[in-house]
Amino acid sequence: MISDKTVERLSQYRWLLEMHVDAQTINLFSHQLASMASVSPAQLRRDLMAIGYSGSPGKGYMVRDLTESIGRFLDGSKPTRVAVVGMGNLGRAIVSFLSGRRSHLKIVASFDTDVTKSGRVIGGSHCYSQDKLEEIIKRENISVAVLTVPSPVAQSVAEKLIDAGIKGILNYAPVPLKVPEQVYIENRDVTAALEKVAYFARQTEERE
Amino acid sequence: MISDKTVERLSQYRWLLEMHVDAQTINLFSHQLASMASVSPAQLRRDLMAIGYSGSPGKGYMVRDLTESIGRFLDGSKPTRVAVVGMGNLGRAIVSFLSGRRSHLKIVASFDTDVTKSGRVIGGSHCYSQDKLEEIIKRENISVAVLTVPSPVAQSVAEKLIDAGIKGILNYAPVPLKVPEQVYIENRDVTAALEKVAYFARQTEERE
Repeated sequence: MISDKTVERLSQYRWLLEMHVDAQTINLFSHQLASMASVSPAQLRRDLMAIGYSGSPGKGYMVRDLTESIGRFLDGSKPTRVAVVGMGNLGRAIVSFLSGRRSHLKIVASFDTDVTKSGRVIGGSHCYSQDKLEEIIKRENISVAVLTVPSPVAQSVAEKLIDAGIKGILNYAPVPLKVPEQVYIENRDVTAALEKVAYFARQTEERE
Repeated sequence: MISDKTVERLSQYRWLLEMHVDAQTINLFSHQLASMASVSPAQLRRDLMAIGYSGSPGKGYMVRDLTESIGRFLDGSKPTRVAVVGMGNLGRAIVSFLSGRRSHLKIVASFDTDVTKSGRVIGGSHCYSQDKLEEIIKRENISVAVLTVPSPVAQSVAEKLIDAGIKGILNYAPVPLKVPEQVYIENRDVTAALEKVAYFARQTEERE
């Protein structure tokens, strides 16, 4: 089993190859890509070996070939169908951020309890009433949800999502969710992230 | 040096103690708090030992005492002064999310290049023109920045922030930043997080 840190770095390598390598660059040495990603060359080589990829000593990595190899590993054969639940500022930011950005991540629906939002098309996909959560998730064959609902309802909404067949949740609500072991959860609590940055920033200040 | 994972979990324990323990609960056993946080009791005990806290065998942890101990460790003696740079949907979500939530994290300014936003008060703090970044960061003694600017300008904005004295950056731009070693960076790229969740969700689907 490949670790979640490795998956995260692979996603970053691909993004760098796509966005920061100009079209004329055909090959790239491991130390160059490693430096762009701020990891060690050894780390990069280990990550790529984990997906069965290795460069050649004389030429390094072929950019296009490597990009495609990472894609085959990360994306699977069909696009992942995604729903965003909770269309406040954060939900809307995520929808507009992802819309059309990645063909293998397809936001097919969003949900909100606010009736002035549901029924509209927001960022290219239909926003439904939260009452229809289970019906739409099943009908649209959605496997991943981004959760940006208020904390007090996050657990109950997560349970409905899982009952409807969701296998992975990207959770922005600042509450740890209890989910069955086979459901993958990634927590992205803003306050916790900021507390952590503040803590380490203070260590630096105190050393100075 | 305490690891960033430990700092992240300590922040979560405090949040659970504050939000999910009712006022009548005076003490709590490690297995109870560990279960709320979805970690093992051994992990919880190790994390608390790292900040010099241990419970008593008969009574476990005293809720108020533990909350305060974590606070003394995480927060320092003065509030951390924070700026949000980039006031699109994501920046606004973060400002409204944090405003007044945590007294030790104080958003004192935000910045945007859009002149219709700068000059206004958004979410309780003043929004300035991005031209004034360095001046205001220095004047307001801001040590931490949340970066939600577009990718192509993220590196140059980060450099300005660091020149002005910023010690920690919470980066939502989907680009790895090059910063001096003493500056703490936490990357929170939405696409990378979602790709990771999609990958692990697909593993579950394929097993079923």
